[in-house]
Amino acid sequence: MNQNPKVQLNCPIPFQDFDAITLGHGGGGKLTQKLLEEGVFTLLNNDWLMSQGDAANLSLDGEYALSTDSFVVSPIIFPGGTIGDLAVNGTVNDLAVSGAEPKYLTLSFILEEGLSTSEFWEILISIRDACTQAGVMVVSGDTKVVEKGKGDRIFINTTGIGKIHSKARLAMKYIRPGDKIILSGPPARHGIAIMSKRQGLEFETTLTSDTRPLHHICQEMLEKFGDGIRFMRDPTRGGVATVLHDIVRQTKLGIEIHENRLPLENEVAGACEMLGLDPLYVANEGIFVCIADHNISDDCLHTLHSWEYGSQASVIGNIVEEHPGGVLMHSNIGGKRMMPQASGELLPRIC
Amino acid sequence: MNQNPKVQLNCPIPFQDFDAITLGHGGGGKLTQKLLEEGVFTLLNNDWLMSQGDAANLSLDGEYALSTDSFVVSPIIFPGGTIGDLAVNGTVNDLAVSGAEPKYLTLSFILEEGLSTSEFWEILISIRDACTQAGVMVVSGDTKVVEKGKGDRIFINTTGIGKIHSKARLAMKYIRPGDKIILSGPPARHGIAIMSKRQGLEFETTLTSDTRPLHHICQEMLEKFGDGIRFMRDPTRGGVATVLHDIVRQTKLGIEIHENRLPLENEVAGACEMLGLDPLYVANEGIFVCIADHNISDDCLHTLHSWEYGSQASVIGNIVEEHPGGVLMHSNIGGKRMMPQASGELLPRIC
Repeated sequence: MNQNPKVQLNCPIPFQDFDAITLGHGGGGKLTQKLLEEGVFTLLNNDWLMSQGDAANLSLDGEYALSTDSFVVSPIIFPGGTIGDLAVNGTVNDLAVSGAEPKYLTLSFILEEGLSTSEFWEILISIRDACTQAGVMVVSGDTKVVEKGKGDRIFINTTGIGKIHSKARLAMKYIRPGDKIILSGPPARHGIAIMSKRQGLEFETTLTSDTRPLHHICQEMLEKFGDGIRFMRDPTRGGVATVLHDIVRQTKLGIEIHENRLPLENEVAGACEMLGLDPLYVANEGIFVCIADHNISDDCLHTLHSWEYGSQASVIGNIVEEHPGGVLMHSNIGGKRMMPQASGELLPRIC
Repeated sequence: MNQNPKVQLNCPIPFQDFDAITLGHGGGGKLTQKLLEEGVFTLLNNDWLMSQGDAANLSLDGEYALSTDSFVVSPIIFPGGTIGDLAVNGTVNDLAVSGAEPKYLTLSFILEEGLSTSEFWEILISIRDACTQAGVMVVSGDTKVVEKGKGDRIFINTTGIGKIHSKARLAMKYIRPGDKIILSGPPARHGIAIMSKRQGLEFETTLTSDTRPLHHICQEMLEKFGDGIRFMRDPTRGGVATVLHDIVRQTKLGIEIHENRLPLENEVAGACEMLGLDPLYVANEGIFVCIADHNISDDCLHTLHSWEYGSQASVIGNIVEEHPGGVLMHSNIGGKRMMPQASGELLPRIC
């Protein structure tokens, strides 16, 4: 059960009173108290949590973004991450692409009776580390437990608040023909990492999820280019293709992209071929699609390239007036095809 | 499957394309789009949701409360409510007892494959109606679907933001010996309603859950009595006894309460006796515990009595220096006993 022997050693003694989560841990009484005080609060220690109020009190002033996501990824621990850091980074990135600097998170667990203490502890550690990396604080939370067979080990909801950059003017309505489509990094890593673990596949090199916070890079883009950045979105479920389809559907414009400009990694391409997946439909957790004024797209690329996570950023295509509602792909071999909208059944529980 | 024939009739035609939720509805593609646009957005229509951004943009200025809760109640439809209005009112009330006027909610679903369309629709309607009653708006959301057997029909997370009343100075640290303990209404209705449905029990009269928003009454209390109100909390999981125990544990003071001052309804008392439950440990969703300066407790009661929901409010006891950490009950027959802390196993999945 314990996938990481180190974790057990770091487990505080009281938390070892039980090997697994029981229904009582969700009852609101003594056991819930124990789980929180000796488990959660040991790691995520701050004044808001320690006050154990029904809500966190925050002083806010200005324009804020609010975003929520529930995470049901399976497996809960995978190459490059856990459901815990995914839950932190996922909401952090929804705020990031909304132009906000993430500040505060809420954290809500739905645990299945029988979840092992050591796995829960490992997930808590990954949450703490992801919060530290992203510079956000968990200020309020909740824990529920459901009977064995009524959940799947652990589901996590995070909801986040971030302050919107004063120069941000991001919305699909600002997108216009001629704008450039920039992809900040190589696609499909997260989905492939999950699928490889789930299917027990072995690749020559282990591909890890790209889960990571993106707001530092997004904030720099906004600071430098202001409303030259029209729109940003992180292509999670449904991948890059789904973001592009959302754009053409809502703007009633068209998109053209070029296969040879996709920053596709060889390992990922190979894994996708083996699994029969198109990398543009596979989930990501550490890249974003950025629509930028064509006058600044080279400068955007330059800025992205200065970041480790953006070193492979590429202008993959542009917004056009032609074929409104359609995404046209120019293939490597010179062909053209309209990319279909994902129906969504391909990869359940990828995040 | 359809518990309310009226619901089917109100169901918009596109939503009837499918009888049940499938994994594809959580995939982020076409089916997710359909579920949202033709289902969720039809009912919860506002500019924030319709923009379909990754986050809602909010202008905020001042002191705010932020609270999160995941709801896993079983059954999902019960006498007096559904998991939907419970999820709205639950978070609304966490904000209310924190002194805040709830403003914005996020709404996140974890659906189990196979959940019937009509039940989901009924829950959506109850969410809409609860939002209208409470005066809050759902501004951002998320929908995930898990395989049959990996969830339990529907889990809902709501996270809310509310503006804190300028006169609110609420925290356990303000509680002092001599303060009065007020219960705003009769205890145990919610827990008994759930248990009766769950166990298929028949009572002479159907007891309904007390789920309802409390912020109007809480705001009036703060407006009138300011920092004379030391602390408020809604006694959900673990009931009134658990709130009292939280208070004595954190304040290191004692509490005395009087059984004959509890506003216990006869039907509830009878049901509790039949089920072998102590009503003070049974969950509530529409009452609150209020700790008030003894000088204003009569005025507080007068104000509470002016509200329908507060008509049975009662001063049930007081804060004492004696037996720190303990809750002493003076029974109807003249005895005294220390009330134990709930261990929490009694009533799983009550909210």
